[in-house]
Amino acid sequence: MGRWQPGARERLEQAALDLFLDQGFTETTVPQITARAGLTTRTFFRHFADKREVLFAGEESVPERVARLMAEAPPSLGPMELIAEGLAPAAAEIFEGRSLDYLLRRRAAIDAEPALRERELRKFSLMSEALEQGFRDRGVDDLTARLAAEIAVTTFRIAVARWLDQHGDPDLPATINQTLAAMRHLTSHGGCSPFLTTHDEDHHRRDTGQLHDG
Amino acid sequence: MGRWQPGARERLEQAALDLFLDQGFTETTVPQITARAGLTTRTFFRHFADKREVLFAGEESVPERVARLMAEAPPSLGPMELIAEGLAPAAAEIFEGRSLDYLLRRRAAIDAEPALRERELRKFSLMSEALEQGFRDRGVDDLTARLAAEIAVTTFRIAVARWLDQHGDPDLPATINQTLAAMRHLTSHGGCSPFLTTHDEDHHRRDTGQLHDG
Repeated sequence: MGRWQPGARERLEQAALDLFLDQGFTETTVPQITARAGLTTRTFFRHFADKREVLFAGEESVPERVARLMAEAPPSLGPMELIAEGLAPAAAEIFEGRSLDYLLRRRAAIDAEPALRERELRKFSLMSEALEQGFRDRGVDDLTARLAAEIAVTTFRIAVARWLDQHGDPDLPATINQTLAAMRHLTSHGGCSPFLTTHDEDHHRRDTGQLHDG
Repeated sequence: MGRWQPGARERLEQAALDLFLDQGFTETTVPQITARAGLTTRTFFRHFADKREVLFAGEESVPERVARLMAEAPPSLGPMELIAEGLAPAAAEIFEGRSLDYLLRRRAAIDAEPALRERELRKFSLMSEALEQGFRDRGVDDLTARLAAEIAVTTFRIAVARWLDQHGDPDLPATINQTLAAMRHLTSHGGCSPFLTTHDEDHHRRDTGQLHDG
């Protein structure tokens, strides 16, 4: 066998996922994963630090990629515009080459194992920190940068979860847009109804300075 | 020594915090904590599962308390109204009896240790799940319930962080209100400016269907 195994990473991911789902994360060992993939443990450790990391391959580069995407965006875009325009391309880049089936099985494995859930939470936390710094670098004030970062990550997480729940239909960009619209609706109108009542509209106008007393 | 040590829990918390900050979380052992507090390891394990849990004492009951507060709130309150009215009382209950100094030192210890940061993330995740279920129980649709839960937790986390950054001034309820106002402003107006420019207003009108072409 040569030093470089074409597709080794993907084969190890699939083998690990099969074993995590069949017999549980705790019961699965690295030698079992490599045996199933037909590869050596040496190859495994060239790609992953440990068995937990198999399901998060490549994600250590997400913060840097997020920073690059933000730096490349037109400076005129405000935080919410940037989120509205940037989330779908970012998601496409993050999930590139991943089938819906792989992502559904991956989620099932993560949901079943506390150590994987904690790793998933940490991933989103690191993504949020990168976004916050990216907004600051665009001249956004600290509080808004932090809030915008959390809104971006929350929208991304919830949209991906809904998209998987619906087995990919509608597609991810459409689900991201729907989720963001629901978020804006909730925060600006209270989320009680899809349409403003006269009472709510007055409240809204008063909040935005468009309604005067008397 | 009697079976019940008055103030044992608080003494163990203070001792653990002193040691985590002085010599590091990894280097600190349960016998060191109990020696410093003048108590036995048996007493320690009556209160905490392990040394990580010392800084999260009582927080396992937070989800149930959140559920109770939500069930007791007037049914007429929409999700954002409930968040606006409920976060400050919830925060007061969660931090009852905790000095600002303790909370600042606790945050410094958590920030310094990945295992404690993961535990903190998990705590907020459990809080979000409880809030989501609470909103569902009030008849809120699934997507709005999930978004509202995340907004509540995000606002709470960011407000507490700012309040600690500012050493308690302004007070936590005021900081929560400011944070929530900034969140609403960001999501409804894009967060570029505290006032809408004509350009932004046109965008906003177009988004909400109030502006027609031509």
